[in-house]
Amino acid sequence: MLFLAQMEVVIPHDADPELVEQRKRAEQERAQQLQRAGKWRHLWRVAGRYANVSVLDVDSHEELHELLSTLPLFPYLDITITPLTRHPSALSDAEA
Amino acid sequence: MLFLAQMEVVIPHDADPELVEQRKRAEQERAQQLQRAGKWRHLWRVAGRYANVSVLDVDSHEELHELLSTLPLFPYLDITITPLTRHPSALSDAEA
Amino acid sequence: MLFLAQMEVVIPHDADPELVEQRKRAEQERAQQLQRAGKWRHLWRVAGRYANVSVLDVDSHEELHELLSTLPLFPYLDITITPLTRHPSALSDAEA
Amino acid sequence: MLFLAQMEVVIPHDADPELVEQRKRAEQERAQQLQRAGKWRHLWRVAGRYANVSVLDVDSHEELHELLSTLPLFPYLDITITPLTRHPSALSDAEA
Amino acid sequence: MLFLAQMEVVIPHDADPELVEQRKRAEQERAQQLQRAGKWRHLWRVAGRYANVSVLDVDSHEELHELLSTLPLFPYLDITITPLTRHPSALSDAEA
Amino acid sequence: MLFLAQMEVVIPHDADPELVEQRKRAEQERAQQLQRAGKWRHLWRVAGRYANVSVLDVDSHEELHELLSTLPLFPYLDITITPLTRHPSALSDAEA
Amino acid sequence: MLFLAQMEVVIPHDADPELVEQRKRAEQERAQQLQRAGKWRHLWRVAGRYANVSVLDVDSHEELHELLSTLPLFPYLDITITPLTRHPSALSDAEA
Amino acid sequence: MLFLAQMEVVIPHDADPELVEQRKRAEQERAQQLQRAGKWRHLWRVAGRYANVSVLDVDSHEELHELLSTLPLFPYLDITITPLTRHPSALSDAEA
Amino acid sequence: MLFLAQMEVVIPHDADPELVEQRKRAEQERAQQLQRAGKWRHLWRVAGRYANVSVLDVDSHEELHELLSTLPLFPYLDITITPLTRHPSALSDAEA
Amino acid sequence: MLFLAQMEVVIPHDADPELVEQRKRAEQERAQQLQRAGKWRHLWRVAGRYANVSVLDVDSHEELHELLSTLPLFPYLDITITPLTRHPSALSDAEA
Repeated sequence: MLFLAQMEVVIPHDADPELVEQRKRAEQERAQQLQRAGKWRHLWRVAGRYANVSVLDVDSHEELHELLSTLPLFPYLDITITPLTRHPSALSDAEA
Repeated sequence: MLFLAQMEVVIPHDADPELVEQRKRAEQERAQQLQRAGKWRHLWRVAGRYANVSVLDVDSHEELHELLSTLPLFPYLDITITPLTRHPSALSDAEA
Repeated sequence: MLFLAQMEVVIPHDADPELVEQRKRAEQERAQQLQRAGKWRHLWRVAGRYANVSVLDVDSHEELHELLSTLPLFPYLDITITPLTRHPSALSDAEA
Repeated sequence: MLFLAQMEVVIPHDADPELVEQRKRAEQERAQQLQRAGKWRHLWRVAGRYANVSVLDVDSHEELHELLSTLPLFPYLDITITPLTRHPSALSDAEA
Repeated sequence: MLFLAQMEVVIPHDADPELVEQRKRAEQERAQQLQRAGKWRHLWRVAGRYANVSVLDVDSHEELHELLSTLPLFPYLDITITPLTRHPSALSDAEA
Repeated sequence: MLFLAQMEVVIPHDADPELVEQRKRAEQERAQQLQRAGKWRHLWRVAGRYANVSVLDVDSHEELHELLSTLPLFPYLDITITPLTRHPSALSDAEA
Repeated sequence: MLFLAQMEVVIPHDADPELVEQRKRAEQERAQQLQRAGKWRHLWRVAGRYANVSVLDVDSHEELHELLSTLPLFPYLDITITPLTRHPSALSDAEA
Repeated sequence: MLFLAQMEVVIPHDADPELVEQRKRAEQERAQQLQRAGKWRHLWRVAGRYANVSVLDVDSHEELHELLSTLPLFPYLDITITPLTRHPSALSDAEA
Repeated sequence: MLFLAQMEVVIPHDADPELVEQRKRAEQERAQQLQRAGKWRHLWRVAGRYANVSVLDVDSHEELHELLSTLPLFPYLDITITPLTRHPSALSDAEA
Repeated sequence: MLFLAQMEVVIPHDADPELVEQRKRAEQERAQQLQRAGKWRHLWRVAGRYANVSVLDVDSHEELHELLSTLPLFPYLDITITPLTRHPSALSDAEA
């Protein structure tokens, strides 16, 4: 089942730069692992902002929460969640 | 180039029901035509709302505006546009 | 899987009173049918507002959308959806 | 009498990690104690956010304030309160 | 138990003037009846707005909802409810 | 003349605890002094929040500003002011 | 005592044009009468909006409410009120 | 002197279509006349919305208000005004 | 030409107190100098807030920006600007 | 293709002043380089705010994001992006 996840990244200006870099590297690794597992179906950068637009495909709300709350950048993320379903005008079945 | 388009549909309660039905049918036809043309890349219903989440793939802002402003339901739509670009952690090149 | 649904009812002042009454009666019938089916797990009135707080238990986003968009009062509802999951401090398993 | 309590947890990034952990443990203990006492009737995690949705059952506003303001995480909580009452379409008497 | 109720009155410009006048007269009568009964403890006009600030004293959320939702002007009211309790610095016991 | 004052207290998490405690004690003393003087007519706690709802009775805007801006907790307060007047449906003259 | 009053004028598009014109003429007459009486101390148009910024000088909240609520355009006005007082850096005593 | 003007066009769905068309034609004529006069320096469509972004060059606030409030579509416009000045990093003097 | 300037002062709680005091003294001096020069036409305190309402009279947007951005408290100010013009119902020419 | 970019600059009060100054100088250099390259088509200061209004001309969303996210002041910027297109009433072709 699909969720739109809109994530804004807010790094406090006085955070430890090394910690931040380490979390960013871990985030990238985790994001790619989840894409390969088919869980993170779409991942786009919002042009001009430190933010992304994502579509996640999970089996339950437990999995959704586990996936998001263990992201290395989670403490810096402001996430908005929107549940998605098949649109009656959508041609492709694969989207649902 | 990709845009996230989030569309809320607001039908005035005293609109002519026949006109509304006619526009809905024309909207569906147009949406499917644009999907077949590869312009309307993703189309999801927001669960529980008369709203959709879309990803559009156009060649210019002119084309984006032409596409949206000629939708049969345009007079009833409140549209939010977000320009998207490739995310550095995205695995697939096809997304950009 | 559980969703918090917060619904505000906004009846246009110039709506046909008979139509509104008919929809209210149908809404009550449908709400009780969904409660008996175990889909509408909780239903509270917000004190002082024409609004309710609900917890819905559905198997998919398709079912969530079908359930909400076919409510007789749907054209007058402004609905906010929040996906819920088990809280690590919750004692009861039944909640998840 | 019932209240919906929606709580967002905001931990300042430069808070003392030991203090935070200690408060989280105390919070869990207190939350479970209040559930056992029948005061914290429902407790759900908001999927994807460090937040919860709760339904509290108290005898007075004094008890509501005492309950919330003595939560170990209270200094980090942003709480929205909504008074609930029985819905005319609710089947179960136990909800009120 | 006390609630702050902040009420904005919004009369649609094309409402039937006679119906509005009739509801206003009934509202005044009802408001005074509730004041005499000790339920509507305080009632102030907001200077410069068609709005009031009220403090209501009710025994339950059921009574609060019954009181507000049967006000003759209820269809035109936008009401914000805030539960109040005794302030630790308040001198008078009568306030709680 | 009466003003509704709605005060939210926001203590920065890294403020000096001793300074905060000292200001809280001074605030309580001042609040009670102003109640005894008839200036702070009503003072309620908002249930579940570090906030209060107050009604102040002052002779001028100068007095209102002097009263509020010299509160010991003023640096931590976010105050919303609403001028009140007699409501045409109010029974008691004493309110105005 | 002085109040800043910021007024937005919103004329419903289907209001009776004659009624609107009549109210505008009456409004102008009343506004000038109040200026001559020294009650409406300042009156500016907001450039580019059907709105004004005003400073009113009244003896009480009753007078403020009477003055505003009897304006011929009051049913179309959205008014924001801010109580003003002498600024410690102001040179002129006449402002207070 | 320059102003950014952001204009949203909101046509009521039950406005007289002929009146609207007539105003749109008059608006276009007026907009081009003001461009030729050097007053309407920039005029862009917001892609996907019935809205524009404009930069106006006027000699006074009177002229700004006269220009905007006499636009044929003014009754349907929601206009946000931002005063602009030369940016210290701007290369071109012509902008100021 | 006239501008309404609404200024909120937000002093970070951990700012250097001496620096703040020094800036406040310099601000007062500068504000009075600008009043004497006829540039700062009106200056009021918002009752109950660390904020002011001002009317500035400048010859250009450059002068407006220069005036505001060199205020000693500028780093702590949140300023909202509204361009003003003569109101058609204003009696006094001196206001424009 | 054109984008309106509205940038607010928020410098944390406890940022290292030398770092800030260095970034401001680098920002100015970069802004002028991008203006000379024809990418930063318009750059205005918002009068009275530490903010600018810009029009950017880029070939893709990738270029837009690269341009903005590498600005030396990017960590302090809150940027709002609006895609622009040719307005049907615009006289000049050069704008599109």
